[in-house]
Amino acid sequence: MNGQVLRERLANDFERVRAQTEALVAPLSAEDQCVQSMPDASPSKWHRAHTTWFFETFVLRPAGVEGLSPEPYAILFNSYYNAVGEQYDRPSRGLLTRPSHDEVTAYRQRVDESVLELLRAEVDDRLAGRIEVGLHHEQQHQELLLTDIKHLLSCNPLDPVYSRDASLKGDDASVPAMRWSGHEGGIARIGCGLPSFHFDNEGPVHEVLLQPFEIAQRLVTNGEYLEFIEDGGYERPELWLSVGYDTVKSRAWGAPQYWRKEHDGWSQLTLHGRRRVRDAEPVVHVSFYEADAYARWSGARLPTEQEWEVATSEPEPAPLGGRAAAVHPSSPSPYGAAWQWTRSSYSAYPGYRPAEGALGEYNGKFMCNQYVLRGSSCATPTGHARRSYRNFFPPEARWQFSGIRLARDQG
Amino acid sequence: MNGQVLRERLANDFERVRAQTEALVAPLSAEDQCVQSMPDASPSKWHRAHTTWFFETFVLRPAGVEGLSPEPYAILFNSYYNAVGEQYDRPSRGLLTRPSHDEVTAYRQRVDESVLELLRAEVDDRLAGRIEVGLHHEQQHQELLLTDIKHLLSCNPLDPVYSRDASLKGDDASVPAMRWSGHEGGIARIGCGLPSFHFDNEGPVHEVLLQPFEIAQRLVTNGEYLEFIEDGGYERPELWLSVGYDTVKSRAWGAPQYWRKEHDGWSQLTLHGRRRVRDAEPVVHVSFYEADAYARWSGARLPTEQEWEVATSEPEPAPLGGRAAAVHPSSPSPYGAAWQWTRSSYSAYPGYRPAEGALGEYNGKFMCNQYVLRGSSCATPTGHARRSYRNFFPPEARWQFSGIRLARDQG
Amino acid sequence: MNGQVLRERLANDFERVRAQTEALVAPLSAEDQCVQSMPDASPSKWHRAHTTWFFETFVLRPAGVEGLSPEPYAILFNSYYNAVGEQYDRPSRGLLTRPSHDEVTAYRQRVDESVLELLRAEVDDRLAGRIEVGLHHEQQHQELLLTDIKHLLSCNPLDPVYSRDASLKGDDASVPAMRWSGHEGGIARIGCGLPSFHFDNEGPVHEVLLQPFEIAQRLVTNGEYLEFIEDGGYERPELWLSVGYDTVKSRAWGAPQYWRKEHDGWSQLTLHGRRRVRDAEPVVHVSFYEADAYARWSGARLPTEQEWEVATSEPEPAPLGGRAAAVHPSSPSPYGAAWQWTRSSYSAYPGYRPAEGALGEYNGKFMCNQYVLRGSSCATPTGHARRSYRNFFPPEARWQFSGIRLARDQG
Amino acid sequence: MNGQVLRERLANDFERVRAQTEALVAPLSAEDQCVQSMPDASPSKWHRAHTTWFFETFVLRPAGVEGLSPEPYAILFNSYYNAVGEQYDRPSRGLLTRPSHDEVTAYRQRVDESVLELLRAEVDDRLAGRIEVGLHHEQQHQELLLTDIKHLLSCNPLDPVYSRDASLKGDDASVPAMRWSGHEGGIARIGCGLPSFHFDNEGPVHEVLLQPFEIAQRLVTNGEYLEFIEDGGYERPELWLSVGYDTVKSRAWGAPQYWRKEHDGWSQLTLHGRRRVRDAEPVVHVSFYEADAYARWSGARLPTEQEWEVATSEPEPAPLGGRAAAVHPSSPSPYGAAWQWTRSSYSAYPGYRPAEGALGEYNGKFMCNQYVLRGSSCATPTGHARRSYRNFFPPEARWQFSGIRLARDQG
Repeated sequence: MNGQVLRERLANDFERVRAQTEALVAPLSAEDQCVQSMPDASPSKWHRAHTTWFFETFVLRPAGVEGLSPEPYAILFNSYYNAVGEQYDRPSRGLLTRPSHDEVTAYRQRVDESVLELLRAEVDDRLAGRIEVGLHHEQQHQELLLTDIKHLLSCNPLDPVYSRDASLKGDDASVPAMRWSGHEGGIARIGCGLPSFHFDNEGPVHEVLLQPFEIAQRLVTNGEYLEFIEDGGYERPELWLSVGYDTVKSRAWGAPQYWRKEHDGWSQLTLHGRRRVRDAEPVVHVSFYEADAYARWSGARLPTEQEWEVATSEPEPAPLGGRAAAVHPSSPSPYGAAWQWTRSSYSAYPGYRPAEGALGEYNGKFMCNQYVLRGSSCATPTGHARRSYRNFFPPEARWQFSGIRLARDQG
Repeated sequence: MNGQVLRERLANDFERVRAQTEALVAPLSAEDQCVQSMPDASPSKWHRAHTTWFFETFVLRPAGVEGLSPEPYAILFNSYYNAVGEQYDRPSRGLLTRPSHDEVTAYRQRVDESVLELLRAEVDDRLAGRIEVGLHHEQQHQELLLTDIKHLLSCNPLDPVYSRDASLKGDDASVPAMRWSGHEGGIARIGCGLPSFHFDNEGPVHEVLLQPFEIAQRLVTNGEYLEFIEDGGYERPELWLSVGYDTVKSRAWGAPQYWRKEHDGWSQLTLHGRRRVRDAEPVVHVSFYEADAYARWSGARLPTEQEWEVATSEPEPAPLGGRAAAVHPSSPSPYGAAWQWTRSSYSAYPGYRPAEGALGEYNGKFMCNQYVLRGSSCATPTGHARRSYRNFFPPEARWQFSGIRLARDQG
Repeated sequence: MNGQVLRERLANDFERVRAQTEALVAPLSAEDQCVQSMPDASPSKWHRAHTTWFFETFVLRPAGVEGLSPEPYAILFNSYYNAVGEQYDRPSRGLLTRPSHDEVTAYRQRVDESVLELLRAEVDDRLAGRIEVGLHHEQQHQELLLTDIKHLLSCNPLDPVYSRDASLKGDDASVPAMRWSGHEGGIARIGCGLPSFHFDNEGPVHEVLLQPFEIAQRLVTNGEYLEFIEDGGYERPELWLSVGYDTVKSRAWGAPQYWRKEHDGWSQLTLHGRRRVRDAEPVVHVSFYEADAYARWSGARLPTEQEWEVATSEPEPAPLGGRAAAVHPSSPSPYGAAWQWTRSSYSAYPGYRPAEGALGEYNGKFMCNQYVLRGSSCATPTGHARRSYRNFFPPEARWQFSGIRLARDQG
Repeated sequence: MNGQVLRERLANDFERVRAQTEALVAPLSAEDQCVQSMPDASPSKWHRAHTTWFFETFVLRPAGVEGLSPEPYAILFNSYYNAVGEQYDRPSRGLLTRPSHDEVTAYRQRVDESVLELLRAEVDDRLAGRIEVGLHHEQQHQELLLTDIKHLLSCNPLDPVYSRDASLKGDDASVPAMRWSGHEGGIARIGCGLPSFHFDNEGPVHEVLLQPFEIAQRLVTNGEYLEFIEDGGYERPELWLSVGYDTVKSRAWGAPQYWRKEHDGWSQLTLHGRRRVRDAEPVVHVSFYEADAYARWSGARLPTEQEWEVATSEPEPAPLGGRAAAVHPSSPSPYGAAWQWTRSSYSAYPGYRPAEGALGEYNGKFMCNQYVLRGSSCATPTGHARRSYRNFFPPEARWQFSGIRLARDQG
């Protein structure tokens, strides 16, 4: 492709992704967008401003475009990039009632216009590459925006509804028996070697040696997880990692996040309101600890991220932007309706080198005390999922759409 | 006065006080009104809803008016009245993005109409008395609303401005030398014995025996407080209560709240923006610990609340509603521009009996580990101040407009 | 008395008090004496070294005696006297396995010999006065030593026994009905005006005006307190100060400290082991919050410290040193087997001036957020009690022998 | 070997290891042995009792020997074995002044006699195996005992000395230039496959695929680490994992634990007292974060545990018991004077199965948020080190003798 075609495609992607963020916050009031419900979560408005700051800082400023925002924005909306300066206290992001919702909208528009103007002229490969990083970065924040707003709404006794749109709702269809795919083990290639976009932590491509294993063809369902609960799973320390059981006790966990015991069964809060827990849907909002304990209870284990990657074939390509349709747990696709905890601690691949400059802070510095999740979720933007994609969260995190795919040794 | 005249006066007061609350939030966006900056503070929206809930619960419901709010409001906007039921977690008030700003406005209007309708018919003395309590209660929240929003805005590096209106601003006029009023001591009557409104903690009237004392005719100024700072006041443990000095060190205090050291002197955040500290204005936003240490440094002490009350004559009557003009520290009125810390721990007067029922929780249960402040501040609504009024806060509180009036023994 | 007689008496007192401290720790191993069970408590060894450091610092050093201890002792055993230098971190006192028990014993002996040698020559009034302060100081620590060791032993599931000596044990004798002494109120003199020893906080003598009141002739018993428990006292917020009820809930209190529910009733840990709660004994180890709630439940209130002092006549004089016999709750003496919480916040008397120099840190700087207890306890050394004595602790403190004497308005 | 020879060898090992524990505490007073300086550490006395409880619970009780300890010991000295019952609160182990030092000594003797008596008769393989586990378990606690007591003594401003014996002291000899050993990569066997003793986490033996790499022939020295400090290493976020830099800031780290800046250079606390930091000695008491940051600063990285194991040849066999001589950092042995942080998160080998029963809690349940250290240290008992040995600690731990061996990719 020649430069102009590339630039047009990038401009299209840019407009689509940026618009998708705005579409996601359309059901939310300025108040909803301003509040932070826990240190791990960020306000929607902050997500909108931060992703904009990203383009301003890493694309526009290097291209010589200045003056698009008041000086303090450089501090307020810098998440964690020490190389570009100071950052506002993370747990206090919800205190920023100013800039207002409308000011942030205007800021987005100014930056959008500038980036599109840039793309109408020549842009060098480095800037084009950074725009592409910025779009994938924004897509990551689109998913966080949904999980963060879900957490906020869950704190409100009024059980508020994010959106009445029911297209994401699963049904009550029965779920097939668990089936397993066998793998012979041996030497396998891991990581993304394609020229298309991927994050630095997906490479370099390298070989690993795997033992024979089996992996489940679908995710664990609510119905199966309920059996674990009813079998006293949360009360039996022998099923848990030591720090996991401590967490269960200190936080009084007895079910996945957003579940509530009603007089006639369990309900769960969803983005479309509170409703009955449906047995056929995949269990979500479980921590690594719960996934690990469930696996042990069921006589299986969690897969390593290498096993997961090897067992998975690349999904159909899809355009950037948009949100994936929810996937039934019995779907043949490995990309279920939920991220899948692996037993792999998040660490560097052999030969890993972070990107140069501030963007080198994107992944590498978080490789400690986090676990890799693979797949995607109902909240992942269409086209954002990749077989080699490495999501990561601390083992106690539950507010993501995180579920369970089992594995076991083949003997 | 006959009943109808009383009811009309009450209706007028009601409309004026309720409108004044709305006037105070007029400069604020829905976002500004939603966020909670610390557990001690509440969002403006919550203040607006809580004061409305107060009328709904203690006036309308006993009068048989029902259905003015969704059921959970009874929990969300109950502050601390155990006798009327459960309460939403206080430090989480800022998570309530719903009900929205507009829904709270509509709630206020529904309750306003119902109360005014009630007042157009007969109301018995008990209900009339409760409406009066509700109005004084709302005036207390008007002051808190201002101090809470000031705290929120202070957390924002953009130094946001509550209101550009500068009528509250002091000037640079010189301040007179400190002068003292002497009092002979002896037996004095304390407390409010008037038939007009006062809180239960202002009574019963009783006699106390005072030693001869002197009290300052004006409040301590910024200029005087700066001398204390420059004399190493915050570094000299011998000037402080033990727990006060621990607080200074653990919180790294070195000046009143909202002060900031600039390259050319001190600035302070005000509701009208950040500006230079003016020597002639009374020092505000100091804790009891700082007031006590300053007094010790200056060779004086804080007055007891009885000394303060005896030394003070009743101010001019003023109508309910409205905000008092700021008072110069050299004003002859004892009701300066700041509440004045006394050395009196907040406790029951001899013979004190809390009101019957839930309203008995208004004052008595807080009589522990708090100190009495007397006077009023620039944020106190006109007509809300009383000579016998007992304000109270924990000794480390600084976000109120709290200042210093000195006293000393006469010997 | 002439100087030599005075010095001989002082030397006798000195030897008796110092020996009494050693007698109190005789039942304890070096291990028992070394450990600190909570930040509020200190190890026995630390008490022994600190009281010795007090004589070294305030008596011997001013008299020119040097070299009695290694340099770091000046930091390790300084409790809170900023004027004489730095202090070792209070919650870490239990980490000081060195100096050893035997080294501290030797330190005590060196200091004892030096003080006694001083007393064989001339000592000026100032030094003599400081020796007297040091002895009363050591007696205060004798009581703390017992309450601190009781707390430590209570943490051990082996229910260790401090001493098998049962002379302190109460019996099962019946307790007389509660009787009240009436007082007319009026002007009363408060504080200690005697030339004999008293702390600076007991003066100056001053007049107060009291309302008519009645005060209970004996302390509240375990049996009476059990009725409060069984009536749901710990579950009824309307009986409690707000911060008191928060404390009850956050610490899961349901009975006095050291009580345990057994299958057939309540037991309590004593210094002589765990045994059945005896109805006739005064309730001890209750906080101010519990005392206040019990009083409200019973239709009474706590006395002010002035009421307590006026209602009390001076007990028989007793020599310094030794431990008081336990007193039955129906004892006519106002000095029951437990300190008695008053409703008075600990504050300065009118005209109070702290002592000059470092000893001025003894009392005044603690006059904040503490409540006064009057009387004495089974752990108070004989002769240490005084009618004007002002003991003080934070309202949540329970590890002292603190109980309840009721009062009520006379109307 | 026949059974009797085996039993005699086991009895010899038993006596030697048990005596070694007592030899390690010989320089310590009963006070030193009782106190706990932080939740991660345990008192020496507790180590002595816990290792004894281990034999009582897992060897003697299954063999039918009862009554060797009072009932509560089963709770007090159970560390974390849920399968055998309740446990005393870990951070409170230092409160156990009872049982006394002498009672624990007597407890050890009773158990020693019973085990030796058992070994004079027939013991089945299972019990013999458990005695062997118990000895290795006790050796692990011997090392912890030394690191825990070092931490306790470090909290004391008197700089106490554990032992004046200077045989462990390094000298000032020069250190050779850093040299690297190259490895070709490829398939390697990992884990212990020998019939001799090893923990369950060292197996099963399995193959891994390694990339070519180089590993340092000696550990990083104090002198080299000082260059990192002087180059601003602790102030440069780009060198650190994100959570590592947060830890550095929140704990104010600026050097390895036990280092102190003196007016003329750095000193460090050792078990033999405080002395000058010697450039030629290996740096110890660094966290994983510091090891990782140092490696990044030096242009290298930490090895994986597989690289470490492959690069290492088995050391000379040595008898159980005794303490290894300190090893110079330039020693050809891979078992330096310090444990060596690897970049490997502690996790299960492929096919790992925990032991049956309570001993299955020994390793597996701790496989989360910890990093593997390989090698041994100056505090490791002779004969306890193994090439396949997997030590593990949280990344912030510094109180072990943990140091740095570098690795790098070979390209």
